[in-house]
Parts: sequence; C-alpha cells; structure tokens
Amino acid sequence: MDLKQFITIVPDWPTEGVLFKDITTLMDNGEAYHYATDQIVNYAKERQIDLVVGPEARGFIIGCPVAYALGVGFAPVRKEGKLPRETIKATYGKEYGKDSLTIHKDAIKPGQRVLITDDLLATGGTILATIELVEKLGGIVAGIAFLIELSYLNGKEKLDGYDVVSLMKF
Amino acid sequence: MDLKQFITIVPDWPTEGVLFKDITTLMDNGEAYHYATDQIVNYAKERQIDLVVGPEARGFIIGCPVAYALGVGFAPVRKEGKLPRETIKATYGKEYGKDSLTIHKDAIKPGQRVLITDDLLATGGTILATIELVEKLGGIVAGIAFLIELSYLNGKEKLDGYDVVSLMKF
Repeated sequence: MDLKQFITIVPDWPTEGVLFKDITTLMDNGEAYHYATDQIVNYAKERQIDLVVGPEARGFIIGCPVAYALGVGFAPVRKEGKLPRETIKATYGKEYGKDSLTIHKDAIKPGQRVLITDDLLATGGTILATIELVEKLGGIVAGIAFLIELSYLNGKEKLDGYDVVSLMKF
Repeated sequence: MDLKQFITIVPDWPTEGVLFKDITTLMDNGEAYHYATDQIVNYAKERQIDLVVGPEARGFIIGCPVAYALGVGFAPVRKEGKLPRETIKATYGKEYGKDSLTIHKDAIKPGQRVLITDDLLATGGTILATIELVEKLGGIVAGIAFLIELSYLNGKEKLDGYDVVSLMKF
C-alpha cells in the first residue's frame, strides 16, 4: 500500500514556508491506519519488545495500537506537569527556547526492551529527549519507529547507533 | 480481570483534596491494557462502528487501539490551534473559564456511526463538546466508552439518551 497518498500536505502551517505533513487523513482511513500500524508491529516483533514508549500526543496515536497488537504495555512521555506521580525529566532545544519531557519513574523496569514511537522524525529533539528518559530508567532502546522521516532535516544522523525505521520519507 | 487493581489513586493531584485516578499503571501492564481495550472492542462490535473519535491526549490512548482492532479509522479531537486544516469548534465550561475543542471538518462522513472514547467521565464537559462536534459533522454517536466513571460527579446524567459504557466506577 502506498501510504503517502493518505498524507495531506498543508502549506504554511504552523508557520510560513513550512509544508506540514498531516497524518490525520491517514488515520481517518481504517485500512491505511491498520496497514501502517502492522508495518511497525512486524518491525517490533523481530526486536522482542517488552514495552512501547511514545511522546504526546501523536506518539500515542502510533504507539498505543502497536502496544495493543504486541500485547505489551505503553508508557506515555508527557510535557512537564501532566503526569501525576514522581517523574524524571529531559530538556531539549526547540526553535525558540527549551522544552521539557517527563516520564513516570516506575514506567520502565531496568533491562526492558523498549520500542519508541512517534509520527514524525524532523530535527530529532523530541526523540533524543525520549531516548534519554528511557535509558535513565535502565530501559534498552531496541527500536525507534516513525510514520514519516523528513530526510532533508538530517534528524537520523543524531540517532546514529540506534535501530530506526520510517514508513515514509519526504 | 479486576481492572481497578491497576489504577493508582494519587492524593491531592492536580489540586488539594482530589483523589486522582491514574491510568498509566494500567497501560504499563500489557495484559491489563489489552484486556481493557478488548472490553471496549467487544462493546463497539455490537454497535457497528465506522469510526472512533477521542479527545486529546488520553482519549487517544483508549481510542487508537480500539480503532486498530476494529479496522476502522480514528479522528482526533484537539485543543484549538493544534489541527492543521479547516476545523469546527465546540466550547465548554471548565472549573475556571472556558476551553475549546476542534475537529477537522472532513474527519467524519455524514451518517457514519461513531464511537467516542475517553479515559474518564467526570462532569462530562469534554465529552459533551466532543458529541457536539461529531453531530455537527453529521456523525451518529453510536456509543461512548470510558475506562473510568466518577459516579459521584453525575456526569452520566448529562449523557442521557446516549449509549454509554464504563469499565470501572468510583
């Protein structure tokens, strides 16, 4: 299935000059959403995953059905102040200023093989912060899966040494 | 399976006096997360669902695996400014002030049978706004599924006439 046909390119969003890749038209199509999820499930099965971890909110859209299909748990990574119990934090640079992501301290057992999921690999900031959180808790990043990779932003170079898959490249 | 054993009660969060029901310890357990999802999948199968709709972010955690298991699409309901294309809006009252939720205008085809999902039914504000969005687009609210219902807040009374299920009641 050619998944790219389900992605909508939105010009000038969120800022002028950006060609935003909108995945909601893929998710809205049951067949395409199921097919895309299954590609990541197959990738994960070969890597003996114990737990799926994804940053909010679009990382949930990819990671939660993958966790369900594998029969493993899902641990959310959220912005500061959103998780109710004791967390650890990782800070990453954004275009303007910094942002922080958190995970519950007890979300990962040391030695668990973790699949990280997100919709899009751009410059890699969010994913590097997520990797930091997983490894701080003793998890092994056994795979990282994206729906889309924006190759021209070279985010993949920052993930050197990790096992990464993207279903679509732009 | 007694799902309540996987819920963590967090005292005084997000504000003093609240006993917050944390679902992350349920999701972290692969067996419990799969079992809970399957209960909602079975409920949905009897109602011939064409599409799942859920408000961010915890509505995604419940709704996305349900959509995957049913082989139907998932349409996200998000806070204003988060969806990239033309949206419609519903406003609802919060404890202090108002908030708005949006959905893409083309997310639902008129006549589609929609399952709405969220983690928790409290006073019902978020869900009433989500119902409004679905019905404005011509969707039929064929079912509403929650992991948890806080019975003492009487949110269910506001959903009179709708087909509602909650896996746990507190």
